[in-house]
Amino acid sequence: MLAAPAFDIRFGLDRRVTLPGRFPLASGQSLAALDIAYETYGTLAADGGNAILICHALTMDQYVAGRNPRTGKPGWWPRLVGAGQPIDPARHFIICANVLGGCSGSSGPGSIDPATGARYAMAFPVITIRDMVNAQARLLDHLGVGVLQAVVGGSMGGMQALDWAVAHPDRVRSVVAIATAARHSAQNIAFHEVGRQAIMADPAWAGGAYGDVPPAAGLAVARMAAHITYLSEAGLTEKFGRRLQDREALGFGFDAEFQVESYLRHQGLSFVERFDANSYLYITRAMDYFDLAAPHDGVLARAFAGTKTRFALVSFTSDWLYPTAESRRIVRALNAAGAAVSFVELESPFGHDAFLLEAPEMCRVVDGFLRAGA
Amino acid sequence: MLAAPAFDIRFGLDRRVTLPGRFPLASGQSLAALDIAYETYGTLAADGGNAILICHALTMDQYVAGRNPRTGKPGWWPRLVGAGQPIDPARHFIICANVLGGCSGSSGPGSIDPATGARYAMAFPVITIRDMVNAQARLLDHLGVGVLQAVVGGSMGGMQALDWAVAHPDRVRSVVAIATAARHSAQNIAFHEVGRQAIMADPAWAGGAYGDVPPAAGLAVARMAAHITYLSEAGLTEKFGRRLQDREALGFGFDAEFQVESYLRHQGLSFVERFDANSYLYITRAMDYFDLAAPHDGVLARAFAGTKTRFALVSFTSDWLYPTAESRRIVRALNAAGAAVSFVELESPFGHDAFLLEAPEMCRVVDGFLRAGA
Repeated sequence: MLAAPAFDIRFGLDRRVTLPGRFPLASGQSLAALDIAYETYGTLAADGGNAILICHALTMDQYVAGRNPRTGKPGWWPRLVGAGQPIDPARHFIICANVLGGCSGSSGPGSIDPATGARYAMAFPVITIRDMVNAQARLLDHLGVGVLQAVVGGSMGGMQALDWAVAHPDRVRSVVAIATAARHSAQNIAFHEVGRQAIMADPAWAGGAYGDVPPAAGLAVARMAAHITYLSEAGLTEKFGRRLQDREALGFGFDAEFQVESYLRHQGLSFVERFDANSYLYITRAMDYFDLAAPHDGVLARAFAGTKTRFALVSFTSDWLYPTAESRRIVRALNAAGAAVSFVELESPFGHDAFLLEAPEMCRVVDGFLRAGA
Repeated sequence: MLAAPAFDIRFGLDRRVTLPGRFPLASGQSLAALDIAYETYGTLAADGGNAILICHALTMDQYVAGRNPRTGKPGWWPRLVGAGQPIDPARHFIICANVLGGCSGSSGPGSIDPATGARYAMAFPVITIRDMVNAQARLLDHLGVGVLQAVVGGSMGGMQALDWAVAHPDRVRSVVAIATAARHSAQNIAFHEVGRQAIMADPAWAGGAYGDVPPAAGLAVARMAAHITYLSEAGLTEKFGRRLQDREALGFGFDAEFQVESYLRHQGLSFVERFDANSYLYITRAMDYFDLAAPHDGVLARAFAGTKTRFALVSFTSDWLYPTAESRRIVRALNAAGAAVSFVELESPFGHDAFLLEAPEMCRVVDGFLRAGA
């Protein structure tokens, strides 16, 4: 009779752990304890060498390859993670955790503050990408994972992947950073600030102290503004153009007459059902704070000095949120630091969202990179 | 003793006229009467041949070269219009009117509905760029101006200028259309829809029936989102980068810590003091409806068929709101229609706003074009 596996290989276990002991934050504050909600798929190899950490983007969650029990939706990265995909539970031990500050079970503004017995709301300390990474490192300790074969992420997930190589260089053999940047630009910050102001302008936000009635209108507007930045002008034109919604002629009113209006409103409304407004504030703030070069007088190469990690960077031609120029900047810095780095810019009309969509070239790049370093 | 001049040549006369008779609109509705607030500078020549109409952009007004009596600010296009400038009251008779739907004195949602004695608010009919142009034509009739030497405008002003040549081809000898487009793209519509939803999400909007307490928070968010589209990523980086506001280090809070946040918040707040939320809804809607090719099965050239008007188009390299590609599309259509057209794309880091800023090349282009056709 076989021994029970150390980790269940079924998808979607909806795991949750409270890691005791104070968790220090970049701000100087700390959390009394750390909740982490996560999923694992596959089995950790006897030598521990097949662990891959997936880092999720701003509005995603730990359900990278399993059904989200709350929304009922399938995993958010099926092209890259799953049976027969580049990251495969048959070969890899895959970990994906809800980020610190998130709203899918990890410690965040919606968590209960043990000091008061009430939700933290805006009393939750401001967090950084580094704090998210350190929380993931704590989870790996708990799971008995020492060195990661790879950290893989797109968008904010790519920021975490890059930061892993900086914060814990001895625990990361390779990094895959897709459609991302090593810092938030002024325009990135500006769009996030619009979203935050939209949330905070909603009286239902109530300084963050809302209960069962969230600031839905404000959060929907925030999502609408952000969603435009995830698409490309060409992609929007191709998908919607100036086509009208359920009508033959202009209605001379303020309904959603154009398809693109209807689509955006839907994006805003459906987001409210699955995301917490305060989490949105905290996570966007963490992204705005992200600047790997800042502790090194703006010289990004110094952040990676002495690194032995291999890097793969992928950007998309129509991504104007984290454009190719930002990936090239990282590549130059890694080259200057003497790191092993491969980079490819992929053609896509889908803007920033391309990394989540059908992207067979991206999958081939990631597959080849992971196999070469396995 | 000299006769009194037909029109006073002093700047900033803050004129206002109510033109009687129903004013028909593109929607099929009509207004019982038409109020137009306007400014004129210079003197109409005996042959009537020196009249230039300036059309203003979304949030501008009739005070193109004179002090705005409400804000105390100087005219908004001093580089192009004024003594010694390409459009000069010493040589030209200059007219600039607040657009229909505006909030600087022309008929709009803030006007009194004669049928009820109360403000129109959202009972004001939805208007189009064509309606704005036709209102200006009525004003020219009133002023005794037959044929315009030129219609000049940037952004939404450029849309009006182009539409003038389509709607009233015999009254326009030349058109100068700067940083503009012949249609609103899906992305343009999307950004406007975010702004409208931000306004409508503000409980103070009250279905448009607000009184002295406008939906300031919603309008400010709308302005913040729009303002990002007026600048360029490179311009924002150059102007603000990741520099902090009044502090040495990250504050780990939700204040405006980055200069770009502080700047954006200021843009939002100051806009509320000078612009009406309902006007913002109506004017953005008019822009979204704009598509000169729509009545011609999408063939823009047909809109200009047989035109004898001369055209000058100017775009700016970093303008991503109405990018050069849109100007080129217009140029191709004008070429196909056999029109006389000159086009130049100017280098600028200032994004869409470049047309309002120091742009000596733009002024030289306009000056040369106007003198050649005088």
